[in-house]
Amino acid sequence: MRASVLSDWLAQRLDRGSGQPVYRQLHRLLQQAILTRELPAGSKVPSSRLLASELGIARNTVTQVYEQLALEGYVTSATGRGTFVADTSPDEIVGSADAPALLAPLGAVDASALPAPISAPVRALQQALPTSQAKALQQAQQPATRALSQRGSRLIAGAGVSKRQWGAFMPGVPDVTRFPARVWSRLHNKYWRRLRPDLLTYAPGGGLSLLRHALADYLRTSRSVRCTPEQIIITTGIHQSVDLAVRLLSDPGDVIWTEDPCYWGVRSVMHVSGLKSRPIAVDDEGINPSPDDLAHPPKLILVTPSHQYPLGMVMSLARRRMLLEYARQNQCWIIEDDYDSEYRYGSRPLASLQGLDTAGQVIYVGSFGKTLFPGLRIGYLVVPEALAESFATASAELYREGQLLQQAMLAEFIAEGHFTSHIRKMRTLYGQRRTTLLDAAAQRYGDALPAVGGDAGLHLVMQLPDGTDDRAVAAAALERNIVVRPLSGYYAEPSRAQSGLLIGYACVPDEEIAPAFNTLADAIDSTLPLFA
Amino acid sequence: MRASVLSDWLAQRLDRGSGQPVYRQLHRLLQQAILTRELPAGSKVPSSRLLASELGIARNTVTQVYEQLALEGYVTSATGRGTFVADTSPDEIVGSADAPALLAPLGAVDASALPAPISAPVRALQQALPTSQAKALQQAQQPATRALSQRGSRLIAGAGVSKRQWGAFMPGVPDVTRFPARVWSRLHNKYWRRLRPDLLTYAPGGGLSLLRHALADYLRTSRSVRCTPEQIIITTGIHQSVDLAVRLLSDPGDVIWTEDPCYWGVRSVMHVSGLKSRPIAVDDEGINPSPDDLAHPPKLILVTPSHQYPLGMVMSLARRRMLLEYARQNQCWIIEDDYDSEYRYGSRPLASLQGLDTAGQVIYVGSFGKTLFPGLRIGYLVVPEALAESFATASAELYREGQLLQQAMLAEFIAEGHFTSHIRKMRTLYGQRRTTLLDAAAQRYGDALPAVGGDAGLHLVMQLPDGTDDRAVAAAALERNIVVRPLSGYYAEPSRAQSGLLIGYACVPDEEIAPAFNTLADAIDSTLPLFA
Repeated sequence: MRASVLSDWLAQRLDRGSGQPVYRQLHRLLQQAILTRELPAGSKVPSSRLLASELGIARNTVTQVYEQLALEGYVTSATGRGTFVADTSPDEIVGSADAPALLAPLGAVDASALPAPISAPVRALQQALPTSQAKALQQAQQPATRALSQRGSRLIAGAGVSKRQWGAFMPGVPDVTRFPARVWSRLHNKYWRRLRPDLLTYAPGGGLSLLRHALADYLRTSRSVRCTPEQIIITTGIHQSVDLAVRLLSDPGDVIWTEDPCYWGVRSVMHVSGLKSRPIAVDDEGINPSPDDLAHPPKLILVTPSHQYPLGMVMSLARRRMLLEYARQNQCWIIEDDYDSEYRYGSRPLASLQGLDTAGQVIYVGSFGKTLFPGLRIGYLVVPEALAESFATASAELYREGQLLQQAMLAEFIAEGHFTSHIRKMRTLYGQRRTTLLDAAAQRYGDALPAVGGDAGLHLVMQLPDGTDDRAVAAAALERNIVVRPLSGYYAEPSRAQSGLLIGYACVPDEEIAPAFNTLADAIDSTLPLFA
Repeated sequence: MRASVLSDWLAQRLDRGSGQPVYRQLHRLLQQAILTRELPAGSKVPSSRLLASELGIARNTVTQVYEQLALEGYVTSATGRGTFVADTSPDEIVGSADAPALLAPLGAVDASALPAPISAPVRALQQALPTSQAKALQQAQQPATRALSQRGSRLIAGAGVSKRQWGAFMPGVPDVTRFPARVWSRLHNKYWRRLRPDLLTYAPGGGLSLLRHALADYLRTSRSVRCTPEQIIITTGIHQSVDLAVRLLSDPGDVIWTEDPCYWGVRSVMHVSGLKSRPIAVDDEGINPSPDDLAHPPKLILVTPSHQYPLGMVMSLARRRMLLEYARQNQCWIIEDDYDSEYRYGSRPLASLQGLDTAGQVIYVGSFGKTLFPGLRIGYLVVPEALAESFATASAELYREGQLLQQAMLAEFIAEGHFTSHIRKMRTLYGQRRTTLLDAAAQRYGDALPAVGGDAGLHLVMQLPDGTDDRAVAAAALERNIVVRPLSGYYAEPSRAQSGLLIGYACVPDEEIAPAFNTLADAIDSTLPLFA
């Protein structure tokens, strides 16, 4: 290896005007020369003094680059003898001799004609390997296309997530602009003023004790949930809560009853963990299993008793007790998703199913996404006493969460009364918006397109005439920049699917509701000539 | 139902000094009386006027309670006739007549002798149900114990998560007290001053575009990762990154190669998703598959090339190229966990494996947990172009993340140069602490207990003599309030397990290192009489 050839080659490629440090450029160029074998294995590189002087750069830079290359395995140093290009490609591990390009002197071979670093050494590798190993390498000489897994493909094919997450009439999104930002910032600054290391590291299993205590009080009082702080597991929201419950309480192939229709996101979480869902019809009293359903007890039952999602009915007491009794006899777990029970207009929020459970079989799931703001990512599970320790351990083991400082802020936010007062204010606000929306709908359509499920929550469902293609209506609305979700998309069983639109009013400013509804109505009319 | 009997019963139980609102107390008491059948189904409740006057409370309170009970299904109203206790228990759905307790008048039956609300109606329910349904209910007359699922039990049994997350010598935890809190608070206040709804709602698939751009720049420059911003998927850390990759790229029963030893947390994430891991030995050059290993190509290969976890060696260039070539031929995916590559002492950080990949087969995984603070919960995947859209969709569908405001803060933190400058400072600091620790060890033990893997990262491994029970040493240390992790616990294959201790020095203040080490040494000596 003549130092001057290498120097010339490097000098041509070093670009001092590029703004990239010379160190980094030199390092990359040498790596590249070694990977493409322009600098063949075993060849000696010029001394740092010589190269530095020929390139007109600091010797220290060259020394550092050599050290880095040595560390990375590109070169090796032999004390007193100098620095040599290392044997880096697999075939060279055993010194295969039939690779002429490897020994070609720098400059004699056009770099673009050299084999790519990855594709070259297969044959040599095979010769070098024991028979079994060589056979393994032969198996796939014609690489098949890499693809998603089966569960991955199903997940993508069934994905229901929307590209838009804000604006009229995005369902399930609260008005985050009303969040008491000043209080929150005050709490933030308080906790960041004197750093507490224990709040910046990983979370203990189950989350911050302070928050678990505050939540236990709140849930006992407001939701009739019976629990100790130890039974509360802090999560990042309903997705993680359901993921944890599903993995701890069921095995692949187990069956879960889901309400039909139900929330798409949770369906994806269950399916990717290997659960088979059996969609159960709902009626005015909530989930309504048929005799055939009852004859096939599932492992898990997922319900939304306070406010069926997305239709909005309340599960009757008789149905609740039937469900609890059935679960007790058949050793099923019930997951109660109490997702937006805080917003009930014209009456107080309804008590939870968990509060009726005396058999330790209900897993209660809630979150702050709808009461504070979705981006906060704090939710919780309330699990039966017997499961509390396992859930706490598993949550730390699987998710390794943190965000304790935020949990501390939230605990104080609740303890200071800001949480309940915010809910009260929002309930009034959303109640008004709901009325505004219903008025706009009545004005345009009279009784022709009835709304259901609007007694609670952040959205209502506008029914469309049977057989209407609600997906087409939603698409027409989106063209007009209005987000609504087609009701039929929430059904698992096509024969049950009703046509309708989920209309979220909570995040739409009062004065925009009527205009936005009229735009939506134009989209409806354009799709349903009936109303044109 | 005589109103006065009910009034007396209620009056005895209402506690005006308890601080609980009368509304809530009355609501609960009536619920309880109905559930325990002290107020039998079909009985008429006194008018709100009468009950209010007998209890000496506001009539409005009673009216509201009745309305709430009606909504919850405990009572029903018949216009002009009054309010009646509803049929709430499953057997009453069809009016079974053989349940005498149901009709017992209030006060005639000792409440404690009444059947619990849940356990009563089994027989009646069976009579009422169609045969198939009744059979289903019979199946489990003797309830078995509800238990964790098989995967759940395995997860708990194998859990490696530590109860303590802070203090000397917790491995893998940076010194969070040095985090530039003032800069962070300034960014926080800037973003909270004018609320941006789009930053408070759910995250779009893949995360905030601003952060993905900032990260792409950083990873290109500092880690030689080749990617566009679209190839970057923001996650909450390595656990979620690996979870997502495993679910999208493998199916239950697929095999993953893991280094032996390796990080326990990721092992749990893989196993709970049904992967079988094949532990592959490591040597001085990193992962070292045997011919038998090579003959059984896995679906996934998980490696830590920059700094093997927990042993700390660097994967050689030859090994890297062999791995890439093998994966290409056998259509395996490689997951590169680059978990603390930023901290390398005495030389620059090493280039990533991803940067050598020309076949689109490497999934690169990193996080800010070690560079900023663990509780932040921001990590990232860099996926091959062909997978970018699927990963973005699946992350939104499965996890429904948020925290966009925090992501915006981080993007600005990086763009303003705070990130790289913080890393530089910490590298110097940790380098000093490492030296202090090595000095303390040398002073106490000379060369007797050599340390390995200390060239990079936040911990080193102190080797113990073969056959030492390192778990006992760790337990003895914990009794002295020192956290170390036994090296043998990281091995999957017991025959390979070496004895040693993971000692994390990064989060220990300089002046505490030597004293803490001496305490640890006392624990070692107490367990190894050899050194006593």
